[in-house]
Amino acid sequence: MTKTPVTAAVCLIGDELLSGRTRDINVQQIAGYLAPLGIPVREVRIVPDEQDCIVEAVNALRSAYSYVFTTGGIGPTHDDITADAIAAAFGVGIGHHPEVFTDLQARYDKMGTEFTEARQRMARIPHGASLIENPVSGAPGFQTGNVFTLAGVPSIVQGMLQDVGHRLEHGEVVRSITVRSSGLREGDIAEQLSALNEELDGVSLGSYPWFRSVTDHGVALIARSTDQDKLKTAGERLVALVSEAGRESELLEGEAS
Amino acid sequence: MTKTPVTAAVCLIGDELLSGRTRDINVQQIAGYLAPLGIPVREVRIVPDEQDCIVEAVNALRSAYSYVFTTGGIGPTHDDITADAIAAAFGVGIGHHPEVFTDLQARYDKMGTEFTEARQRMARIPHGASLIENPVSGAPGFQTGNVFTLAGVPSIVQGMLQDVGHRLEHGEVVRSITVRSSGLREGDIAEQLSALNEELDGVSLGSYPWFRSVTDHGVALIARSTDQDKLKTAGERLVALVSEAGRESELLEGEAS
Repeated sequence: MTKTPVTAAVCLIGDELLSGRTRDINVQQIAGYLAPLGIPVREVRIVPDEQDCIVEAVNALRSAYSYVFTTGGIGPTHDDITADAIAAAFGVGIGHHPEVFTDLQARYDKMGTEFTEARQRMARIPHGASLIENPVSGAPGFQTGNVFTLAGVPSIVQGMLQDVGHRLEHGEVVRSITVRSSGLREGDIAEQLSALNEELDGVSLGSYPWFRSVTDHGVALIARSTDQDKLKTAGERLVALVSEAGRESELLEGEAS
Repeated sequence: MTKTPVTAAVCLIGDELLSGRTRDINVQQIAGYLAPLGIPVREVRIVPDEQDCIVEAVNALRSAYSYVFTTGGIGPTHDDITADAIAAAFGVGIGHHPEVFTDLQARYDKMGTEFTEARQRMARIPHGASLIENPVSGAPGFQTGNVFTLAGVPSIVQGMLQDVGHRLEHGEVVRSITVRSSGLREGDIAEQLSALNEELDGVSLGSYPWFRSVTDHGVALIARSTDQDKLKTAGERLVALVSEAGRESELLEGEAS
C-alpha cells in the first residue's frame, strides 16, 4: 500500500509582495524547513491585505493540502488583519488570548513601553487555536486546524518554524542531486534527457537553464527521488549524458529537496 | 462614473520555485513593469510543472483579473509543458507555428547547431495565439486571450515584456511615498497611523517593519495614491507622526507602485 503523500501550501499575505516592493524569501525558508521532513510545498499563493482574498485562498489551500503556512499580517497596525481573516475562514470567533495578553503585558512592562491598544491586537487569536512560540519578538503565531499562521519578518518566521515541525506528520524525504554544466544549452540534451526520464523509474528529472550573459549561461540538471541508490545512478547517467554532448559538468550531492 | 480598474495576476510555473531551489525575481520584474501602466498585480500563484495544476490556476486567474502573466516552462525539455497547458486551459489545439518554426530553423542553421525535435518543441504555439517577441534567445512567448506566456529566465522575461505593454489597457497609476525610520517600532505609532489612514481620503497607508538584529530594525511607512497632492500631504503627515513618536525619518519620493 502506498502511503498518502503529505503536502504543504504557502500563502504569503501582503500588498508589499504583490507590488514588488519586497522580494519574498519565506517560500525558500519554509520549503527548506519542510523538505527534510518529507513535506513538499505544492502550491504558493500571494494575496493582498484584504480579508476576502485571504479567506478565499486559505480555504482553497487547506482543503487541498495537508498543511498550509501563512506569513504576514499579524503585527499591531491597521493593515494586520490575518488573525481576523483566519477566524473568518474557519468560522470561529476571535479575541484576546489570556495567556498571550499577560505575556505581552509583562514583556512591555519590562521594557518600560506602554502596552497600547494597538499592541494588544497582537494578543488576538482565533478561538480554539494553539499558539506557536515566537522566540524573536514575543508575539506568537498560531495553529488553527491544519493552518499555521506565522509572522512576515523572515527572522521571526525562522524562529517560529522551530515550534512547528514536531506537530507535523512526516512524509518520505525526497533528495536531489544537481549536475551543473556551464555552456551547455537545453536543446543539446533535451531528447536524451527525456528518454532518460522515461527510463529511470522512481526518479524525476528537471532541467533549469540559466542565462546571465552570452558568456555566462548553462543548464542545471536535477534528479529527485526518495531512493538514494536510484539517485546515485541518475547522477552518473546525467554526468555521462552531458559528457556525450561534449561538455564538462559538476555533480552536487544529495540534499533534501 | 468610476473607471473599472485594470488588474493583473502572475502565475509562476516551476518545481524549482516551490522547492526553494530558485528564488523568484519575476514577480518583482513584472509588477515593476506594470506599475507605471497603472496595472496592479493583485494575486500570484506558484504551481508545479504539472498540466492539471497549471490549467486550474490559469483558468481561475484569467476569469478573475484583466491580465495574467505566466512564467516558465516554454523551453525544449520534457518538463516544459506550459504551451500545452495553456492550449488545454483555453480548449484549443496546438502545433508548430510556421513562422516560429522557420525563424528558429534559420537561427540554428546560422549557429551551425542542429534544429532537433526537442528544439522544434519551442515552435509549438496554441492555435489562435499571437507571438511575443524574444529579443534575447529567439524562441517567442505568446498571448492567448488575456494570458501572456513568458519564459522563466529573468533576462528573457525582461526582454519579452517590451513587446507586451502596447497590448494592454492602462489604468490609473498608483504612486507611493515611503517614510523610513530606523529604531521605530510599529506599536509606537499604530493607533495614530490607523487614525490617519481613516482620515486621509484616497490614500492607503501600509506599515512594513524590518528586523535584522536588535540594533538594526525599524519601520517603513508607505502611502499609496493615484493623486499626487494627496500623496504629498500624506508624506508630510507621516513624517510628523514619526517625529511625534520621538524618531527621525527619511522620506523617499513618489515612484509608481
